[in-house]
Amino acid sequence: MQNFRFCSPTEIIFGKDTHTTVGKETKKYGSKVLLHYGGGHIKRSGLYEQVVSSLTDAGVDFVELGGVKPNPRLDLVHRGIAIARDNGVDFVLAVGGGSVIDSSKAIATGALYDGNVWDFYCGKAAPEATLPVGVVLTIPAAGSEASKSSVLTDVEGGDKRPANFEIQRPKFAIMNPELTFSLPPYQTACGAADIMAHAIERYFTPTKDVEFTDRLCEAGLLTVIGNAPKVLAQPDDYAARAEIMWAGTVIHTDLFSTGRVGDWASHRIEHELSSINDVAHGAGLAIILPAWMQYVYKQDVDRFVQYAVRVWNAPQDFFDPEKTALEGIARTKAYFKSIGLPVSLAEIGIGEQHFERIIGNCTKDAEGKMGSFMRLGDDDMRAILEIAK
Amino acid sequence: MQNFRFCSPTEIIFGKDTHTTVGKETKKYGSKVLLHYGGGHIKRSGLYEQVVSSLTDAGVDFVELGGVKPNPRLDLVHRGIAIARDNGVDFVLAVGGGSVIDSSKAIATGALYDGNVWDFYCGKAAPEATLPVGVVLTIPAAGSEASKSSVLTDVEGGDKRPANFEIQRPKFAIMNPELTFSLPPYQTACGAADIMAHAIERYFTPTKDVEFTDRLCEAGLLTVIGNAPKVLAQPDDYAARAEIMWAGTVIHTDLFSTGRVGDWASHRIEHELSSINDVAHGAGLAIILPAWMQYVYKQDVDRFVQYAVRVWNAPQDFFDPEKTALEGIARTKAYFKSIGLPVSLAEIGIGEQHFERIIGNCTKDAEGKMGSFMRLGDDDMRAILEIAK
Repeated sequence: MQNFRFCSPTEIIFGKDTHTTVGKETKKYGSKVLLHYGGGHIKRSGLYEQVVSSLTDAGVDFVELGGVKPNPRLDLVHRGIAIARDNGVDFVLAVGGGSVIDSSKAIATGALYDGNVWDFYCGKAAPEATLPVGVVLTIPAAGSEASKSSVLTDVEGGDKRPANFEIQRPKFAIMNPELTFSLPPYQTACGAADIMAHAIERYFTPTKDVEFTDRLCEAGLLTVIGNAPKVLAQPDDYAARAEIMWAGTVIHTDLFSTGRVGDWASHRIEHELSSINDVAHGAGLAIILPAWMQYVYKQDVDRFVQYAVRVWNAPQDFFDPEKTALEGIARTKAYFKSIGLPVSLAEIGIGEQHFERIIGNCTKDAEGKMGSFMRLGDDDMRAILEIAK
Repeated sequence: MQNFRFCSPTEIIFGKDTHTTVGKETKKYGSKVLLHYGGGHIKRSGLYEQVVSSLTDAGVDFVELGGVKPNPRLDLVHRGIAIARDNGVDFVLAVGGGSVIDSSKAIATGALYDGNVWDFYCGKAAPEATLPVGVVLTIPAAGSEASKSSVLTDVEGGDKRPANFEIQRPKFAIMNPELTFSLPPYQTACGAADIMAHAIERYFTPTKDVEFTDRLCEAGLLTVIGNAPKVLAQPDDYAARAEIMWAGTVIHTDLFSTGRVGDWASHRIEHELSSINDVAHGAGLAIILPAWMQYVYKQDVDRFVQYAVRVWNAPQDFFDPEKTALEGIARTKAYFKSIGLPVSLAEIGIGEQHFERIIGNCTKDAEGKMGSFMRLGDDDMRAILEIAK
């Protein structure tokens, strides 16, 4: 186990009807709020009205900015920053999923920064201050509601980049599983895959002696694997929705990677897929993760055996560890397929003509190599994309 | 799953040599520190000198109060409060295990309270403010380093009582597993049992639909169960010490009981054992827990089957669930015995003559009943003590 620091101070307010407390919770931190959200979904569902009522009842003044799209955009963030400054905003309230939260995090730090907020995403600067951010979560997937992470896309520059700053953890996250009942099946499945990826990419580590966090990752994976089919079969299964929602948050607080290095190569490759054709992040991960596993498993067959046996209940062949390892990978891929996700690049219209762009973008900021479980160079990535074809 | 609020903001600084950063960490919160500790152990080990050096190097001024005993006492807390007030202390630094931390929490809230700090422990008042508390942990057991809990004993009144206040969570916990190498085997085993109890008493819940937190509890239990024998065999096994230390903290932050009710009857009964003869808390729990299980398991045989199979790898008899449930309980008891702990009241010199006092004290503040997995009245507790004889 490596030395580590860990602090996850986001207050979680979880359960039925909790979204109606948003005004009261917001008032603890701000009096002039930027209400930030996506498209029409929260208006159609009535959530928008309920949030506005709660803010109004609590005497919280607000301005608003909708229009966040999946893979949130830098240009909208700049508009949000301008609105925040012009209106003396002192709190950003995200109502939505990971894209809305990520956009809110960027606005909240950008509003207090003299330079271009993009600096935080391309490694030029780190935010020293931020407006507080609160969340009403509607999509369990990105884990952004309690994480230090966010991802932003500069459409003009054709660039999608992650940032990780402790200062960007939200103050509170209000999580009512009922708000997720209306998620379409495909989006539900994509969310499950994203959550699973957050556990899997922590799980496959080169760090030794990490039993507790291994078991925590397994706990998270087993929970999501078991409950995603339940909510696909019955979208208003509160208990199953709640399991997925809570696991999704906890997995991405970093508790599950304390003392260990993760390997985020699959996430990084997936970001390139999304930037090519806006494929949902979880769907892209369902394609890349099994291919990545297939290519890297020989780095640590024992770990893949543990994964196969504990996570997928694969029968262990004690005399042929590779067989067991491969069975775990096969089950991963079969599972993604079973919940309705693509498992090949062909299914999302990405072909060999895109490979060099994907590889080039991935390695250009990584000094030619990326990943930690296995260090990947251009040829390695090409091989992974070939497997994923 | 029940609705819940959860926030665990304690900053964890974990790993080798981390205790040497205590001065720098303390300085973020205070400039006049009460350094609070137990007996001679930290002086003999050199830790005291290292902490003093670190504080001095960071320019932190301090006064000190040693002498905390296991089952920390109200009278010493009163002395600490007086010292804190007389010296304008603005931060309490606990260097030790659960007793030192609990004593520090009480001093930190008591120093800002006009009444008697005991009010917080007998339900008369809740603290509205506290001095910040920091921790250098030397004993993985109580989980107090990041929890809202503390326990205090009023020797004069013959009373030992717990308190749970969010405000009492420490600001930081510095955790270097190397500091635990010198723990004697018995104390190491007692710590493991206490940590296991924190997971077990969350695990046996009447709340339905709590899969994720079930699995988290199992992850914690499996980690401690596997690693305690390793450190008993080799006290300087860093990896195993680290697993136990980190699991012990996380289990007691309340993350593992989010959305579910726990059953703390065994802890409550154990407090009475300790108040009779100062038996180590973990040893008392090793006696009470299996007896409690034996008495209550019919309330939810399925849950005990899950516990037996997942935590103890017991062979499942699909046609006789009770047999499997009982096997899990038998393995729990056998395990405690195997790590050198007592498993009967006779071994610690507590006999039938004490039973009525134990029962009376337990139920007097519980309106005649306590526990939630099964509501226990006087007769139930008598039966549990009989099993534990």
